[in-house]
Amino acid sequence: MNPSQHSSVPPEQTLDPGDWNAFRAQAHRLLDAAVDRMEGYREGPVWTPLPLGLQADYQVPLRSKGMGPEAIERHLTALLPYGVGNTHPRFFGWVHGSGTPGNLLADITAATMNANLGGRDHGAMYVEKQVVNWCREIFQFPETSSGLIVSGTSIATIVALKTARDRCFDFSSRKTGLQKTALGQLVGYTSAQTHSCVARAFDILGLGSDALRKIAVNEHFEIDTYALQTAITEDRAAGFTPFVIVGTAGAVNVGAIDDLETLADIAQAEKLWLHIDGAFGALGVLCEQLRPRLTGIKRADSLAFDFHKWLHVNYDAGFILMRSEELHRRTFSERPEYLKGAERGLAAGNPWPVEYGPELSRGFRALKVWTQLAEHGTDKLGALIAQNCAQAAYLKTLVDDHPHMDMVAPVAMNICCLRYRAPGQDELEVDRLNDEIVVQLQVQGLAAPSTTLVNGRNAIRVNITNHRTTRADMDMLILEIDRIGQELMIATNWIKNNPKSLADKH
Amino acid sequence: MNPSQHSSVPPEQTLDPGDWNAFRAQAHRLLDAAVDRMEGYREGPVWTPLPLGLQADYQVPLRSKGMGPEAIERHLTALLPYGVGNTHPRFFGWVHGSGTPGNLLADITAATMNANLGGRDHGAMYVEKQVVNWCREIFQFPETSSGLIVSGTSIATIVALKTARDRCFDFSSRKTGLQKTALGQLVGYTSAQTHSCVARAFDILGLGSDALRKIAVNEHFEIDTYALQTAITEDRAAGFTPFVIVGTAGAVNVGAIDDLETLADIAQAEKLWLHIDGAFGALGVLCEQLRPRLTGIKRADSLAFDFHKWLHVNYDAGFILMRSEELHRRTFSERPEYLKGAERGLAAGNPWPVEYGPELSRGFRALKVWTQLAEHGTDKLGALIAQNCAQAAYLKTLVDDHPHMDMVAPVAMNICCLRYRAPGQDELEVDRLNDEIVVQLQVQGLAAPSTTLVNGRNAIRVNITNHRTTRADMDMLILEIDRIGQELMIATNWIKNNPKSLADKH
Repeated sequence: MNPSQHSSVPPEQTLDPGDWNAFRAQAHRLLDAAVDRMEGYREGPVWTPLPLGLQADYQVPLRSKGMGPEAIERHLTALLPYGVGNTHPRFFGWVHGSGTPGNLLADITAATMNANLGGRDHGAMYVEKQVVNWCREIFQFPETSSGLIVSGTSIATIVALKTARDRCFDFSSRKTGLQKTALGQLVGYTSAQTHSCVARAFDILGLGSDALRKIAVNEHFEIDTYALQTAITEDRAAGFTPFVIVGTAGAVNVGAIDDLETLADIAQAEKLWLHIDGAFGALGVLCEQLRPRLTGIKRADSLAFDFHKWLHVNYDAGFILMRSEELHRRTFSERPEYLKGAERGLAAGNPWPVEYGPELSRGFRALKVWTQLAEHGTDKLGALIAQNCAQAAYLKTLVDDHPHMDMVAPVAMNICCLRYRAPGQDELEVDRLNDEIVVQLQVQGLAAPSTTLVNGRNAIRVNITNHRTTRADMDMLILEIDRIGQELMIATNWIKNNPKSLADKH
Repeated sequence: MNPSQHSSVPPEQTLDPGDWNAFRAQAHRLLDAAVDRMEGYREGPVWTPLPLGLQADYQVPLRSKGMGPEAIERHLTALLPYGVGNTHPRFFGWVHGSGTPGNLLADITAATMNANLGGRDHGAMYVEKQVVNWCREIFQFPETSSGLIVSGTSIATIVALKTARDRCFDFSSRKTGLQKTALGQLVGYTSAQTHSCVARAFDILGLGSDALRKIAVNEHFEIDTYALQTAITEDRAAGFTPFVIVGTAGAVNVGAIDDLETLADIAQAEKLWLHIDGAFGALGVLCEQLRPRLTGIKRADSLAFDFHKWLHVNYDAGFILMRSEELHRRTFSERPEYLKGAERGLAAGNPWPVEYGPELSRGFRALKVWTQLAEHGTDKLGALIAQNCAQAAYLKTLVDDHPHMDMVAPVAMNICCLRYRAPGQDELEVDRLNDEIVVQLQVQGLAAPSTTLVNGRNAIRVNITNHRTTRADMDMLILEIDRIGQELMIATNWIKNNPKSLADKH
């Protein structure tokens, strides 16, 4: 029984620390650096690119001999300040959540347990099951619904649309594929403002992105439900097979919420699957102001959303909620012999999560979601969503009052699309100016909005899904946009008179 | 600029700790509990199911008021012992890696940075880029290859096979889908021992799992390359369109490695895509003993594998390596306006990872991979793979020498499939006996192998991808299988004479 009995073989080694006390001290030092960084999230530039010298430190050649734990500690500590910026109160880019210090505790626990949640009967599974229960409750889905934590809405959308697809063929398509099916070509419908992950899911699933009809939007950037109805009728007449409507709660450019109740009515009348992309907007149900506009969610067949956006869970964590556990399982379940379950022992705990999605290896994302909801409760998490919406409304008043700024879209929730404009500039010059303002805000570390195109023109897009943002940050943002805008206009005027200048490289 | 100027609005709140010193103390306490747990990974039962009382603690109702940080700390600390068991030296189930304490440091850093690696220019991106470079070097792929970290081989396989699929249509299938394509039905080939994630990828991609031909294996459980060649010829004659061969490096039941060089020859001659599923076996290239059998990998068009298996990176982290960056990007790239890149600022750093896979939200998995490779180096990581193979070979000698045990498959790498057998038992009784031995090993906390079916009969499957395992653990495993087997046989004989016994419930 003693390894030394096998004296002819080399001594056995492991990746565990040689000196546990030294490892423990290291971990505590790094943790202190991490908490220091968190305490300072509000300080310094929003975004600091990784300096060239440090880039080289991480882009070292592959090593046959390891650099050892002390060098690792140095590398990890040095990397801490060079994130995306989404932990800073003036990060307004795309739709990034800002994370929480509390989630660090969840991640320490998850790293120590190192669980795979593909299946089996172990502690982590009960945590994920409860997150599924909580999501059911939050969105008023029935007991017979099911859910799965995934990396984000992109994967969640694939899960939902595969179910909608395979249901059309009574699941025979799982075996036979789509190439030789008898049905007319499957087509789906969504608004022109929908996130690209929906078309991407059509592409991946073999339906083709053209099969996703992009329906025009109204002046609120919400899907035009009359145009939708017309498109369905025309497609049926032309021999296509409509199968799904994808509604949006929080569209990409302006955060629009489609008229979900009407979409549910149409889906019901036309016998189509109703999927809702609620990547960041769905969790608006936690706040009183948004809840009335999201009642249609509880009529959907499936809902995809992210915890790492407006619930501020650390990256990455999203969710797919499905009305019918049975259809969900029939779309993914396939348990070969080497994954077979058991009544007792470690292989119990049926059904396994692998029967509800594409992944068999699944880390313990559930713990940070559970922690966030349990620690803070839905009231506070909802109040923070309302707080972001109030900040966006406040920013709109600042823009409206400003002589050089215009809102270019309504504020549906938490997103302001605005455009800086100087007297006498043509639209192309204004486009370039707004792009450059965003780059300068980022490069100078003052704020990090993103850019987008609204009605064919560049806009500064300020998205607030950030529990650290205050109204004072809105005041500062407007001041800085104006300062940079004025500086660039002076430069632009100079450029007009000096056409071979640097500005052409912009 | 001072928020107090807006006195009519409620005071702004955040999810940050109210008392940073208290939070820091909490984090250090939890970290100590985590390191205690890690020091004790070798002690106690391999697997401890979550006790009923504790289950209730995590399955609490959704709370409107949060439980606060102290309660969270208690819940997290209490959960630490209830993992899958894969951190224990006698966990031999399925193919789970065992993780490393060093990865805790990476996860603390990643949780603090909370980066989204879907794209943009920030520190985390340089780390992932270097992991891609290192993978290229490890597998001798050209400079023009590309790669992406994903959750595991399941997603990696989807990425690879979508590229192989869409290439057949010069990528028009991305828009048009598969339903109305002119080509004969696409079919692919793999061995009957391949992991179910390959058929699942065919299903997801709309090709249908029947389109994956399961070719018979030889006595080493490797794909029969003559049968493969025949199947391709017959399919072509029948109007099908062969498009991919999926080779396996480390098949599920016995860990077989297909004859990858011959597969590469056939793929080249037949102009087919060669994908290799190397989920756990591909990293065998790091060890001298296995490298000669894996030379075919460098001829593949794509390779999928996991870092969380034989590299012992914490869950979850896998990889897709693609020979042609161009084909890879053409399969996934689609950058709408709101995700457009820039030359400078935060939106720079093109191309973005979202152009190479299905996910836009991507946590900082790269850091734990980088840390593992940099800290330990490829020599030691390779030696640990060799160590596991030597342990499997040693276990085989113990089984061969044992009067009541038989090996039921060759040992290709690190997996032993064995069968306990008592004199006078028929095969069905032996099946039940072996299933029950595995349950008892798990329930008694002694070891955690899994079960599988080899040549139609139940076997005890001992997979060693565990840097903590020693030869002494093999000795103990054999003793315990024998003890439990003998106890069960006594019970079985009793059952035969008492047919209405409990055993029927097994």
